[in-house]
Amino acid sequence: MKCAVGIDFGTLSGRAVIVDIANGKELATAVHEYRNGVIDEYLPGTKIRLEPDWALQDPNDYIDVFKHTIPAVLKESSVDPTDVIGIGIDFTATTMLPTKADGTPLCFMPEWRDNPHSWVKLWKHHAAQPEANQLNAIARNAGFASILDRYGGKISSEWFFPKVWQILNEAPEVYNAADRMIEAADWVVWQLTGVETRNSCTAGYKAMWSKTEGFPPDAFFKALDPRLEHVVDEKMKRKIMPLGVKAGGLSEQAAKWTGLKVGTAVAVANVDAHVAVPAATVTEGGRMVMIMGTSICHMVLGESEEIVPGMCGVVMDGILPNKPGFEAGQSCVGDHFQWFTETCVPEVYEKEARQRSISIHQLLEEKAATQRPGESGLLALDWWNGNRSILVDVDLTGMIIGMTLLTKPEEIYRALIEATAYGTRLIVETFQKHNVPIRELVATGGLPDRNHLLMQIYADVTGLPIYIPEATQIPAVGSAMHGAVAAGYAAGGYDSIIEASRKMAKLREVSYQPNMENRSVYDKLFAEYVILHDYFGRGDNDVMKRLKVLKFTQSRKNNNG
Amino acid sequence: MKCAVGIDFGTLSGRAVIVDIANGKELATAVHEYRNGVIDEYLPGTKIRLEPDWALQDPNDYIDVFKHTIPAVLKESSVDPTDVIGIGIDFTATTMLPTKADGTPLCFMPEWRDNPHSWVKLWKHHAAQPEANQLNAIARNAGFASILDRYGGKISSEWFFPKVWQILNEAPEVYNAADRMIEAADWVVWQLTGVETRNSCTAGYKAMWSKTEGFPPDAFFKALDPRLEHVVDEKMKRKIMPLGVKAGGLSEQAAKWTGLKVGTAVAVANVDAHVAVPAATVTEGGRMVMIMGTSICHMVLGESEEIVPGMCGVVMDGILPNKPGFEAGQSCVGDHFQWFTETCVPEVYEKEARQRSISIHQLLEEKAATQRPGESGLLALDWWNGNRSILVDVDLTGMIIGMTLLTKPEEIYRALIEATAYGTRLIVETFQKHNVPIRELVATGGLPDRNHLLMQIYADVTGLPIYIPEATQIPAVGSAMHGAVAAGYAAGGYDSIIEASRKMAKLREVSYQPNMENRSVYDKLFAEYVILHDYFGRGDNDVMKRLKVLKFTQSRKNNNG
Repeated sequence: MKCAVGIDFGTLSGRAVIVDIANGKELATAVHEYRNGVIDEYLPGTKIRLEPDWALQDPNDYIDVFKHTIPAVLKESSVDPTDVIGIGIDFTATTMLPTKADGTPLCFMPEWRDNPHSWVKLWKHHAAQPEANQLNAIARNAGFASILDRYGGKISSEWFFPKVWQILNEAPEVYNAADRMIEAADWVVWQLTGVETRNSCTAGYKAMWSKTEGFPPDAFFKALDPRLEHVVDEKMKRKIMPLGVKAGGLSEQAAKWTGLKVGTAVAVANVDAHVAVPAATVTEGGRMVMIMGTSICHMVLGESEEIVPGMCGVVMDGILPNKPGFEAGQSCVGDHFQWFTETCVPEVYEKEARQRSISIHQLLEEKAATQRPGESGLLALDWWNGNRSILVDVDLTGMIIGMTLLTKPEEIYRALIEATAYGTRLIVETFQKHNVPIRELVATGGLPDRNHLLMQIYADVTGLPIYIPEATQIPAVGSAMHGAVAAGYAAGGYDSIIEASRKMAKLREVSYQPNMENRSVYDKLFAEYVILHDYFGRGDNDVMKRLKVLKFTQSRKNNNG
Repeated sequence: MKCAVGIDFGTLSGRAVIVDIANGKELATAVHEYRNGVIDEYLPGTKIRLEPDWALQDPNDYIDVFKHTIPAVLKESSVDPTDVIGIGIDFTATTMLPTKADGTPLCFMPEWRDNPHSWVKLWKHHAAQPEANQLNAIARNAGFASILDRYGGKISSEWFFPKVWQILNEAPEVYNAADRMIEAADWVVWQLTGVETRNSCTAGYKAMWSKTEGFPPDAFFKALDPRLEHVVDEKMKRKIMPLGVKAGGLSEQAAKWTGLKVGTAVAVANVDAHVAVPAATVTEGGRMVMIMGTSICHMVLGESEEIVPGMCGVVMDGILPNKPGFEAGQSCVGDHFQWFTETCVPEVYEKEARQRSISIHQLLEEKAATQRPGESGLLALDWWNGNRSILVDVDLTGMIIGMTLLTKPEEIYRALIEATAYGTRLIVETFQKHNVPIRELVATGGLPDRNHLLMQIYADVTGLPIYIPEATQIPAVGSAMHGAVAAGYAAGGYDSIIEASRKMAKLREVSYQPNMENRSVYDKLFAEYVILHDYFGRGDNDVMKRLKVLKFTQSRKNNNG
């Protein structure tokens, strides 16, 4: 038996899986929660308060994932380390950090540790919105609009260059002290191998790189800010490695951390959503993969590079060789329900859930399932964490309408689920209108396993059947598949990701088929959603943005006493 | 010492106070919670489910208030019943019921008890909206628009005739069996005295009666529905008694219930908000009284009968002799915060409140008080129970905007408080624009005593100082004042309500003055509120109404299996 290890770095934890290469069977998995989690209030161990919209992480937590999870899966599966032929990793993106030339994160260095800009900026750090806005305006006015077109017309503040530019603007000393600005995805591969590489997925989807044109020219960066002119040569690398290739062999140090053999093949890094596509059996067009966790990433393969407004990006070879990979996303899904259960559910519900030994999510879903679509009278806009697709605007915020004095928590919970389903339907319809066919959905991530009502609502709202892949740890299995491809056929692995997908990925028998009676009610509710979506999201009433400006002003005043 | 007893019938309980007539001192108070409270899900003791927007009460609960509270205040104050010269009552309105000619409520009769239409329709029973809509349309088209003008252009579904008409439409057998349709206010006076009277306050503000024109003509009712043509003569009385006069003396039965003397003067009934005005020291124009409880009633005296859009009514002599009394209102205030604390506050907050032995409201207010205006980024429309003024539309529902994943319960709580304050400011500004001056606010009711943050927010949002009357049980004291006037000067009481107010009512020294820095931020937020108010409330986007229609349809389907 030949095996591969995949490690999936999520928002709150990292997760390893060890997989039988012959059939994709998951032999063991292990999870490690990041000790410092998402840092969004105070810098760890200090009274240094972060401003609104900041979200940092500690790179040490990523190393701890290797140290804890790989030994755990080896032990649990009893696989001999010599039978592990490849390792792959996937990461949230853009999650990035400034480092020295040897890879040392600036935040590990005492002289920089108290500066929040020296830490990892997590994907959901949204404080670089001014830079994103400026970048979009300058790109459009200075003759680089065609670059934006590949990204739905707008670069998100979640991406690489707005975050780099925010560091330069707010902490030029950190920018200057950094020899590298790097995706955490590439940084952890560097830590495993001792070799600095850059992968085509984050470069293409998050750093405006394309296979044919490379990064934007220096003139583009100069137009943004003269100090950024040489950012690619000074802080990055121009050589971008395709997915599935070997970044290097496991270093001695990393072998000690993990218990794996020195020299084991390590694949170049990948992004969690993209690596999930072949792991979800999808290697052709028409089948959209939804990775449903804290957020949803929507991934679909096309036949041609279509320009779709509000998508996150189209990257040739970004997911599979010789196909344009399209990405769209919703930035607040599982996070949304988590926020709700932590912030808005009364004690009596929490007691009932405890007494019945079910989760609060299960209790709410059970209560919400007794209702028909529309019965609550509620409608929400799912923008608690901004809108990624199709508006690409993190300054949008949540809205809910229709409450009465008889409104119950489970009704609000259901309305939030429905709102995220409307968001997905709008994304699906936008792709369909722009020549990217979508006939079915394949759902992975944490939500499909636990939330049957949610899955049925998505099927009813979109009118599409939803299938579920068999693997439980999809991104990690996808990473393991890439590890098997990095190891290569000669070592017992595979020559291509398509071949690996055919051998290692399957669908479950159970699926969610749309209920057409519910669908017709949801058609009405979706029409209302679209009206409010456009009213609040397309400039008719920019109240959300004005409230956000006031919020920052007043919050600053309060922090300054 | 001469005393009077006032009884205030609220939404959830009745409250009696015994007052020293010389100075208004409250000698004792007692509260009795209605056993059946607000009946809005099932008819008591049955599986008969009420439709959405219904709210009933049990008249037996009102009698129990007399039986429990009056003996209690007599005992606690040690006042000799012979020293009690008058009794007054005030009630929510329109709270109405069908009875037989002897005053027996139909819902006390076995043959009618299982019919929800035989019970008391509470003020916040909103299911007569179709009838209110029809009444408004017909009044306007059939030449009776000038009647509507006295009521801000629209009759509310909360009022008398829409409720009567709903009974006729949905349960003609109940309508036909009823010899009387009567305000609960007048019904409880009937129960005390054995004499059926109708008071000018409910007649004027809730049943379209005016001092100069009487009730609308039979032709008006015929235009609504031929079956209603003679509703006034068949089901009501045309003789309307002015406020402060004696309805009758206490009956033998009522003397037994209460421990008071047979023949004690009982004043004609009054409405809780209106009776509060003189008890709050207000006997002149320019000073708006806000009765702040489950809802807010805004009462102000004017010099001339101005037509103010969206007010609830202007009634000459409706509050004080020879002055037009103006009323406006917000239908969801204390109820709003109660809904929030019961439905949306997490266990960890409830635990903290218990550990510190403070109420959940206190805890939320304490946490919310650390924030500046605008700092939460939230904005709400306070329409959880429809909008009484200035839109007069119960089909509007709640909205909240600006939520993020960091939004905290106390921020939502504060946003709901602020929303109700914006609603009050819009009412104040509408009066001011239409020649009814308002220079200061006098706040009474349950909220001012307990909610200092709320009071300061109202001062900051409106830019007006807020004063608080000394009496703690304002409506009940106002009722006692009316009892003292009903008894008359010869019996040791007063000749007029103005005189009673001067002797019996005082302001506290403490007041709330607007903070002008906060005021300027609230000016911005209020401008946003007005935009959303008009967008959702004035026909730009009737999504709230469409959602409500769908809610009814789907709820009916669900109830029918």
